[in-house]
Amino acid sequence: MPDLSKPAVTVLGLGDMGSALARALLKAGYPTTVWNRTPEKAKPLVEAGATHAPTVADAVTASRLVIVCLLDYKSVTDVLDTARDALTGKVLVNLTNGTPGQARELATRYDVDYLDGGIMAIPPMIGAPPAFVFYSGSRSAFDTNKQVFEAFGGTNYVSTDAGFAALYDIGLLSGMYGMFVGALHALSLVTSAGVPAQEFAPLLKQYVSAMLGSIDGMAEQIDKQDYAIDVVSNIGMQSEAYVNLTLSAEELGMSPELLAPLGPLMARRVADGHGHEDIAGVVEILKKGKK
Amino acid sequence: MPDLSKPAVTVLGLGDMGSALARALLKAGYPTTVWNRTPEKAKPLVEAGATHAPTVADAVTASRLVIVCLLDYKSVTDVLDTARDALTGKVLVNLTNGTPGQARELATRYDVDYLDGGIMAIPPMIGAPPAFVFYSGSRSAFDTNKQVFEAFGGTNYVSTDAGFAALYDIGLLSGMYGMFVGALHALSLVTSAGVPAQEFAPLLKQYVSAMLGSIDGMAEQIDKQDYAIDVVSNIGMQSEAYVNLTLSAEELGMSPELLAPLGPLMARRVADGHGHEDIAGVVEILKKGKK
Ligand SMILES: NC(=O)c1ccc[n+]([C@@H]2O[C@H](COP(=O)([O-])OP(=O)(O)OC[C@H]3O[C@@H](n4cnc5c(N)ncnc54)[C@H](OP(=O)(O)O)[C@@H]3O)[C@@H](O)[C@H]2O)c1
Ligand SMILES: NC(=O)c1ccc[n+]([C@@H]2O[C@H](COP(=O)([O-])OP(=O)(O)OC[C@H]3O[C@@H](n4cnc5c(N)ncnc54)[C@H](OP(=O)(O)O)[C@@H]3O)[C@@H](O)[C@H]2O)c1
Repeated sequence: MPDLSKPAVTVLGLGDMGSALARALLKAGYPTTVWNRTPEKAKPLVEAGATHAPTVADAVTASRLVIVCLLDYKSVTDVLDTARDALTGKVLVNLTNGTPGQARELATRYDVDYLDGGIMAIPPMIGAPPAFVFYSGSRSAFDTNKQVFEAFGGTNYVSTDAGFAALYDIGLLSGMYGMFVGALHALSLVTSAGVPAQEFAPLLKQYVSAMLGSIDGMAEQIDKQDYAIDVVSNIGMQSEAYVNLTLSAEELGMSPELLAPLGPLMARRVADGHGHEDIAGVVEILKKGKK
Repeated sequence: MPDLSKPAVTVLGLGDMGSALARALLKAGYPTTVWNRTPEKAKPLVEAGATHAPTVADAVTASRLVIVCLLDYKSVTDVLDTARDALTGKVLVNLTNGTPGQARELATRYDVDYLDGGIMAIPPMIGAPPAFVFYSGSRSAFDTNKQVFEAFGGTNYVSTDAGFAALYDIGLLSGMYGMFVGALHALSLVTSAGVPAQEFAPLLKQYVSAMLGSIDGMAEQIDKQDYAIDVVSNIGMQSEAYVNLTLSAEELGMSPELLAPLGPLMARRVADGHGHEDIAGVVEILKKGKK
């Protein structure tokens, strides 16, 4: 089934995500070679048309384009260090989740044309938008292989700095986990009071969605480092009302820990004389680093 | 200008929010009496047609419908305790932010028909949807005065339990503040790396908006107390990847404190044998109360 006029691709790592990537490549007709530490996981892919390589070096040798998707950066270096020579001159695309610093380190560790990626999707979404991947690093590696990457979903090249795909990835995940923090606190609160979570969920989604618009104002204030412009609710008043989130949780016997850190940060801004300004000013404290 | 065929309304408290409420009542033609601790704040409202009452008791006596909007519950009881007798038989609507327990306490403190409210808007929004107010407590007080309340924006009566307006209010604010926590962490992260916040904001809004859909699945799991159904990304994998949020912040010299509490909660679920389940299971730990 592989279309031999299409470039060969190698996938290292066949966990949930690596398997989804390999399957998408096969579906798009790319001759695909796979490797995994636990070789059994290659079986369903071989049945779908993939070639199984017994060693990392064999897998790397099979294609000019090598995609790696393992648990973490340590597993990536453990695996790739065994095939240093075979890697020379290859295009290496690392789609393992990590930090910007880890991506920059990998970019120079091997003699390769390096691209880093941040996958913004879960495995069953791979294969079509709305799944998309941030890429950063070698611009030519991206341009040459863009069509291959489209087998996974949308592509978003963000910078020649290899660390930026991870930066954007972690930035969006931070936004998502914050939203989860709020939703989990809220659903825990209402269900503790006997309101079904499914009854409250539509209101919650609607309200948070309406409030997403405030991000634009926050972003402008943060870029200008001026938190006194376009203040809609001053942080002094918000800081007073915020204690009711903790008190309400405690009244219902629930731990307020998820939302706890914002309170002291707001109070610190007020104590520092910024009570009339907007909540986005807490970014100035965050940027000063650890307490 | 007041339409004397319309019922008289009293507003106690003329801070930003109380003034906005009084102004909306005047605009809708209700004969409006106002009182504030600092009497100067009544001036612009008197110019707009309001009657200023020199004491709380005078203000309460002027109307059957009394709306109170002060800083917090302590200021509400401080103010209303001075007019206990005048309050007898009135409809008291408390729109001051507080906890469900505080609302229930107020519901029985005076000899009144009591309604509690949670305002889901900032002062400039008062007067029309999308501003809305949750009401709970006396159903007849709500039904009789619904038209008056429509001067403020939408109305949403949630329960005869006086505490529920505050519960819903605090629930939605929790969702909003969680979203803010994520956005502030994300914007602090990318700007620390030199990416303008305004460049990242559109991506952030779009991604969080897309992820809001997960709240439905979380709500179903929480109601069924079964976190193994429809798992899209198991908490074991998420718990591993979550450390990269902290590590990335630290690489950029930024404090990870805002998003810190979720990490240990996820790790606890994994340690308790729920690693294959979904993230919503952390609600079970929250509900057990304070550590
Ligand atoms: N799943 C998602 O929703 C999702 C979404 C976005 C990004 N990601 C990222 O994608 C990457 C892979 O995730 P996944 O869901 O595929 O995880 P997974 O199902 O747990 O698979 C982990 C993979 O890493 C391999 N591995 C772990 N330690 C290794 C070592 N020391 N040496 C060699 N191989 C090792 C495993 O090999 P064995 O089979 O031999 O154990 C397996 O192939 C992660 O960085 C994850 O954060 C995942
Ligand atoms: N502003 C918003 O965006 C917003 C949104 C939703 C809900 N709310 C809630 O609405 C309520 C009022 O907020 P606001 O924005 O109007 O606040 P504000 O502008 O700070 O006004 C506070 C009001 O409380 C009075 N007050 C405070 N302590 C008092 C005391 N011990 N005795 C008598 N009066 C006292 C003040 O009187 P003086 O004028 O004499 O100081 C003033 O009238 C709060 O519960 C707030 O959480 C506000």
